[in-house]
Amino acid sequence: MKIAFQGERGAYSELAAKAFFNSSVGLLPLPRFKDVFNAVKSGKAYKGILPIENSLAGSIHENYDSLLKYKLHITGEVKLRISHNLIALKGEKLSEISKIYSHPQALSQCSNYLASMKNTEQVPFADTAGAAQYIKENKIKGAAAIASSQAAKDYRMNILKRSIEDNNKNYTRFIILSKTKGRTPKGTKMKTSIVFSLKNMPGALFKSLSVFALRDIDLFKIESRPLHGRLWKYLFYLDFQGSIKQKKSRLALEHLNEIANFVQILGSYPVGPEIRP
Amino acid sequence: MKIAFQGERGAYSELAAKAFFNSSVGLLPLPRFKDVFNAVKSGKAYKGILPIENSLAGSIHENYDSLLKYKLHITGEVKLRISHNLIALKGEKLSEISKIYSHPQALSQCSNYLASMKNTEQVPFADTAGAAQYIKENKIKGAAAIASSQAAKDYRMNILKRSIEDNNKNYTRFIILSKTKGRTPKGTKMKTSIVFSLKNMPGALFKSLSVFALRDIDLFKIESRPLHGRLWKYLFYLDFQGSIKQKKSRLALEHLNEIANFVQILGSYPVGPEIRP
Repeated sequence: MKIAFQGERGAYSELAAKAFFNSSVGLLPLPRFKDVFNAVKSGKAYKGILPIENSLAGSIHENYDSLLKYKLHITGEVKLRISHNLIALKGEKLSEISKIYSHPQALSQCSNYLASMKNTEQVPFADTAGAAQYIKENKIKGAAAIASSQAAKDYRMNILKRSIEDNNKNYTRFIILSKTKGRTPKGTKMKTSIVFSLKNMPGALFKSLSVFALRDIDLFKIESRPLHGRLWKYLFYLDFQGSIKQKKSRLALEHLNEIANFVQILGSYPVGPEIRP
Repeated sequence: MKIAFQGERGAYSELAAKAFFNSSVGLLPLPRFKDVFNAVKSGKAYKGILPIENSLAGSIHENYDSLLKYKLHITGEVKLRISHNLIALKGEKLSEISKIYSHPQALSQCSNYLASMKNTEQVPFADTAGAAQYIKENKIKGAAAIASSQAAKDYRMNILKRSIEDNNKNYTRFIILSKTKGRTPKGTKMKTSIVFSLKNMPGALFKSLSVFALRDIDLFKIESRPLHGRLWKYLFYLDFQGSIKQKKSRLALEHLNEIANFVQILGSYPVGPEIRP
């Protein structure tokens, strides 16, 4: 009954999994995002957790594309505050650091702090916790990783400087994936995620949004992705307020079917909390 | 009077520049996308050309973000058919190739062909033409790059196999950047690109699209990006039919100003041709 996530131990996805489920949950770290989809699809993992968007960097489009392809269900979400730390081997001093390893996005999210560190070289790495692990395993002196405080604990390393991110409105939204549909707990604020493509008609996108607006259904997010094989046509991923079990949601989707070529429901799930680990 | 582009000689951006301007235009190859923005902003280049979306991989979000930041004008576009080729040193045979270098996107766009090549290793590289240049300069045997046929010419290498891309609906749309606004040639089909953020009101996105739909103005594309500092709020990049000089476009934008927090016009320009080099 394990939860699959992408990355090494100490990855932000692991923190999100522990925040959403509980800290004693069994975890299955996997190298790539699509390994998480495959683990849930095959039953190797009970559920999967995947980042879908960051409040600064935007959507993780690869995972949007896989949502369509794998036909799993979104059963929940959690928004995790991303706080980056400068992490090194025990005994290292801040003044001795000359190389900084991390994921390119983490490096760019700490650019103000990094600009203040003279004579340091930035080294792009596949993931944040993996960078800490790499320094630890190879006992690299004069090097630091940018990663979560959990990574420092997991690899028994020191935090030289906490919260070095430029912008404190840095959150990543994670979705929970399952082979089976989620439940709708009574009295819970719900949202529904769908993906659709439009018929070739004038004002089609406007008309597709009207099915929600005319029923006073709020939209949380719209994301467009190219529709392969139909040049300059798009798929739209939409998150709207409410559960698919509500009558007005069902009527809106019936109405959307008049305008769309196809509509796929990705899941109805409780609106997730914002968590600071 | 040079045209700035990102990449090495033989890059798809160079092909797009030659197709849009003419083959004898002066070119300025630069390492990063933002170098192209800076070169146009500073006057070091007369114009810049940048990829903005690929028909399979989607938008290049970094360039969308820079459009907002640099406040340059889009004065044109061109859609280039992307055809990938397997390129090696002269004298190399297809059966001897064991390593294939290219940009990760080019590698993934040729995955069917690559799957048919047994015992080959894929090596990610910063850009396609750069991979060809690397093999040439280091005289690497048993290696091939995936790049344009122009790259094979530029680096005097051999094409072992042409058009190895999985999907022939593979086009990249490039935009032309300038410090000054573009002109509207009479009788030309025009489009206009804008970016806006919405006021906090119910159905705001629907209302923003209504300003176009109510005036029978077709939309080509909508792209959302996170609005920094306002958690889970978005910027919308929109391409619509017609020039900003037309009365109905102006009225639509006046109407949009009632619903939007801010609206920035990125440019009005002729709808670009689709070109097969």
